[in-house]
Amino acid sequence: MREAGVTMSQKITGVKASAGIAIGKAFLLTTPDLQINTVAIEDSESEIQRFQEALARAKNDLEDIVLRVEREMGTDHADIFKAHLLVLEDPELVDTVKDKISNEKTNAESALNDIAQAFIVLFEQMDNEYMRERAADIRDVTKRVLSYLLGVPFAGLGELTEEVIIVADDLTPSDTAQLDRRYVKGFVTDIGGRTSHSAIMARSLEIPAVVGTQGITRAVQPATLVILDGHEGIAIIDPSEEEIAVYKRKQADYEAQKAELAKLVNDKTVTLDNHHVELAANIGSPEDVAGAIANGAEGVGLFRTEFLYMGRNDFPTEEEQYVAYKHVLEHMGDRPVVIRTLDIGGDKHLSYLALPEEMNPFLGHRAIRLCLDNQELFRTQLRALLRASVHGNLKIMFPMIATLEEFRQAKAILEEEKKSLVNRGIVVSDQYEVGIMIEIPAAALMADQFAREVDFFSIGTNDLIQYTMAADRMNEKVAYLYQPYHPAVLRLLHNVIKAGHAQNKWVGMCGEMAGDPIAIPILLGLGLDEFSMSAGSILPARQQLSRLRVEDAAKQIDTILQMSTSAQVEAFVKEWLERV
Amino acid sequence: MREAGVTMSQKITGVKASAGIAIGKAFLLTTPDLQINTVAIEDSESEIQRFQEALARAKNDLEDIVLRVEREMGTDHADIFKAHLLVLEDPELVDTVKDKISNEKTNAESALNDIAQAFIVLFEQMDNEYMRERAADIRDVTKRVLSYLLGVPFAGLGELTEEVIIVADDLTPSDTAQLDRRYVKGFVTDIGGRTSHSAIMARSLEIPAVVGTQGITRAVQPATLVILDGHEGIAIIDPSEEEIAVYKRKQADYEAQKAELAKLVNDKTVTLDNHHVELAANIGSPEDVAGAIANGAEGVGLFRTEFLYMGRNDFPTEEEQYVAYKHVLEHMGDRPVVIRTLDIGGDKHLSYLALPEEMNPFLGHRAIRLCLDNQELFRTQLRALLRASVHGNLKIMFPMIATLEEFRQAKAILEEEKKSLVNRGIVVSDQYEVGIMIEIPAAALMADQFAREVDFFSIGTNDLIQYTMAADRMNEKVAYLYQPYHPAVLRLLHNVIKAGHAQNKWVGMCGEMAGDPIAIPILLGLGLDEFSMSAGSILPARQQLSRLRVEDAAKQIDTILQMSTSAQVEAFVKEWLERV
Repeated sequence: MREAGVTMSQKITGVKASAGIAIGKAFLLTTPDLQINTVAIEDSESEIQRFQEALARAKNDLEDIVLRVEREMGTDHADIFKAHLLVLEDPELVDTVKDKISNEKTNAESALNDIAQAFIVLFEQMDNEYMRERAADIRDVTKRVLSYLLGVPFAGLGELTEEVIIVADDLTPSDTAQLDRRYVKGFVTDIGGRTSHSAIMARSLEIPAVVGTQGITRAVQPATLVILDGHEGIAIIDPSEEEIAVYKRKQADYEAQKAELAKLVNDKTVTLDNHHVELAANIGSPEDVAGAIANGAEGVGLFRTEFLYMGRNDFPTEEEQYVAYKHVLEHMGDRPVVIRTLDIGGDKHLSYLALPEEMNPFLGHRAIRLCLDNQELFRTQLRALLRASVHGNLKIMFPMIATLEEFRQAKAILEEEKKSLVNRGIVVSDQYEVGIMIEIPAAALMADQFAREVDFFSIGTNDLIQYTMAADRMNEKVAYLYQPYHPAVLRLLHNVIKAGHAQNKWVGMCGEMAGDPIAIPILLGLGLDEFSMSAGSILPARQQLSRLRVEDAAKQIDTILQMSTSAQVEAFVKEWLERV
Repeated sequence: MREAGVTMSQKITGVKASAGIAIGKAFLLTTPDLQINTVAIEDSESEIQRFQEALARAKNDLEDIVLRVEREMGTDHADIFKAHLLVLEDPELVDTVKDKISNEKTNAESALNDIAQAFIVLFEQMDNEYMRERAADIRDVTKRVLSYLLGVPFAGLGELTEEVIIVADDLTPSDTAQLDRRYVKGFVTDIGGRTSHSAIMARSLEIPAVVGTQGITRAVQPATLVILDGHEGIAIIDPSEEEIAVYKRKQADYEAQKAELAKLVNDKTVTLDNHHVELAANIGSPEDVAGAIANGAEGVGLFRTEFLYMGRNDFPTEEEQYVAYKHVLEHMGDRPVVIRTLDIGGDKHLSYLALPEEMNPFLGHRAIRLCLDNQELFRTQLRALLRASVHGNLKIMFPMIATLEEFRQAKAILEEEKKSLVNRGIVVSDQYEVGIMIEIPAAALMADQFAREVDFFSIGTNDLIQYTMAADRMNEKVAYLYQPYHPAVLRLLHNVIKAGHAQNKWVGMCGEMAGDPIAIPILLGLGLDEFSMSAGSILPARQQLSRLRVEDAAKQIDTILQMSTSAQVEAFVKEWLERV
């Protein structure tokens, strides 16, 4: 045992990526050194043959991974590997490499590396998130093929046999997809932020994680003991006995708290003064329904349908969509399921739908705007939704509605498709609702007019805040203007909820704000009916709401709406919560 | 004379670029055929010499043009040629051409053409308006140098000696800068839109113009008689006697109407029921003041200061800025002059200030956001403004304010600079006002809070509408959502004006909407105090307002604010105007 007061441990801070505490031995995930030499070859035929064999083995690997990931983590998590398979089959890449091998009589490693680098440089320079992601895909796939060509084992996480904490520069999608929750107790990386791929995966897998430490890989030796605190965003390397004891207690407290929350799974969400609100889950694929139910969701407040369109070569058929919608509706039983029609464009692109480059994609031709211009795409989705309507409690939601004309046009198209289905003898429910997302200031300002024609509103705060503040939250230079508690935002929310209720329409929220403990008391006071959030936030929100009174919350609203800054609102709510 | 009923004339329609009617002979402005042959040369030294002589002659030309344009049209119109001079002196271009000549032993024409094309292709592919403009500059300059190398006279408009209508594929900045209003009665082009460079220049020079006819150059023979109707956007080639007579009448009517308007130059702007509003001009350079006064401006409602920063190699000094602000203030006498602090970023870039590429520049790090982060830049401008404050009726305006914190910080910096100037014994006025542009929904929604702290509001509708509708108006796919009459926009305007007046602050508008005949009656009814517009719109607006009653207008507002679509508002106002 060490002497008191003398600590050899080293504390490294990073970004809180995923909550929880882990204590375990470090597993250093290093990138294999793929040394590429350019060698002149004699027989280009057999070199091409060698290249094709490596491609085939990489393809085999990836197909196995797709199957395993689909089974263990859900189909949407496999999309990235399907994208990798597409890269392997892309003639622009593969044929160019073969040409280089035969024209320049150069070895396959060098030809592949050169061509891949050229594509990566090209794609990375593009001012387009989608293309930059393609660059990452090419890099990942190229490494895999090169490791076969060079006979260097491709570093994977598949061979873990004991509990570890992964320490890495960054985790690629290939890495995260292979994370085995039995062995991986947490991870910590040099780079990345709260919204980087690895951070999102950690939260989705409920693995504690700290990212962006800018140096953990240099500070840790393999098998060193590491404590990871995902709540505080710190890693302690080679901790003292006392530190281990402290964190074991913290870990136990956290587990106890989780167990406490777990008891609320089957409860209704009710405030101290017996006001019921609905806590729903945002989901991204049919497989997420299980997690939503496990976390006590009283409904699905946002089912994003983009997953159906991503990572493939062509539009999904009506039947494929019908099966997916039916799955979610059936599993949710009579609980409401809000399905949002396709929200593509902006930063979300499809490889098989050519969209022009836009100067300001967030202010561009996306979501309902694009659907109204590409009606076959839209009508196919609407037919699938209408056919699925008999399998549960369906609410159809149109995204990015700015004007009443757009809503009327979208609804008229829905009616046309319904009539034509019914004429063909197909049963369509008469119970489904049709509503809109409120995520554009114009729609929030005109909520009184919309409320006469829609069945419900769901407020999409992520975009609504961006447009209200005129600040792209993905742009770190102006991210400080993404202020959910800003009184301007709250005034819009107040207007929307008031307008909805005046016409007896329910109002929900499906932005990140709905699960935020500072926002929840305000939203309760504003009269929000449905809070839709990531599944993991539902039980804490239920617990928080069970300790609040709607009557108290409503009394604070006038004061809050007359405040002048976000900081003022935040301080006020924190103080109020301390009094509760 | 032709037989009645038989017409040989041909009517071609295009885009209305600039009002007015012109009748005259066509002058076909064709691009000289610059045939570039690649020739191997022996003596690269003398070929480089030849290249440098052509550069020197082009430079000489451009320097003459800069002087003449500055004298006749104002310094800001010369900026484009200053940019061309910078291209001529750019070592990246010039040295690369020389290297190519000496390394490849190729002739100067071919080397220049190849290198210039490479730059043009590169810049045109960039997703950045500023870089695409640089591509146009390189193209223009390259043509000029090539014409010297090839001994082909550079087609210019300098040699006109009789009245003509210019017919061209498009007018380059070089062309428009040489337009001599004595001889050029109008122009018509194959390509371009209402906001293309040539269209903007035509309006600024008050020359009738039709652009984007997609075929006028093929349809017209040199010296054919052409009628140009800038109101309707048509050109009539080889018109009949009757057509000539009709258009001469129209021309006379238009001139009479202009003369009628000219009588209002020195009048105040007063409604039928004796309510005064202020009609001010938006200007872009000190030279525009003369035009503003000639058009009866009662003030300058928006002086954009970007011109001071554009087309140069470094930031303007405090002294240069002081001289420019003093000029405008002195020439406007005691009339108010609203000077907006630097609004750079977004789609406006400076060659000497490196800004990162942004995914959504309109939602990015621009205007006040950038100034608060680059305080030396901001403080220099504020000192120049404070020093100029003693020379007239100054109102300082901060653009893109989203939060009260931003305004407070900007104002605190202004106060600091004022105190430090006063400490140095420099006289600063105590009369200037400090206000903000309302162009972000958050600011419009929080106008009641801002009104307590600012001296005035000026509503920037161009951006406010974009953000409120979440639609980039430069993006043709969503330009239909740029709806100035949309009730959501009008509700925001109503809120801002009401909030300003509640604190006895004046409220102006400096977006395009302020000069729009459909918007004017609504804005009058909403209580707008100051309408700032392009100088050419002031007299028509004064005439329109002199026929309206503020009392009538105010009565319509409740009805309008309860409408649900832009189309409804527009139809209502048109009908109302017919009744007036």
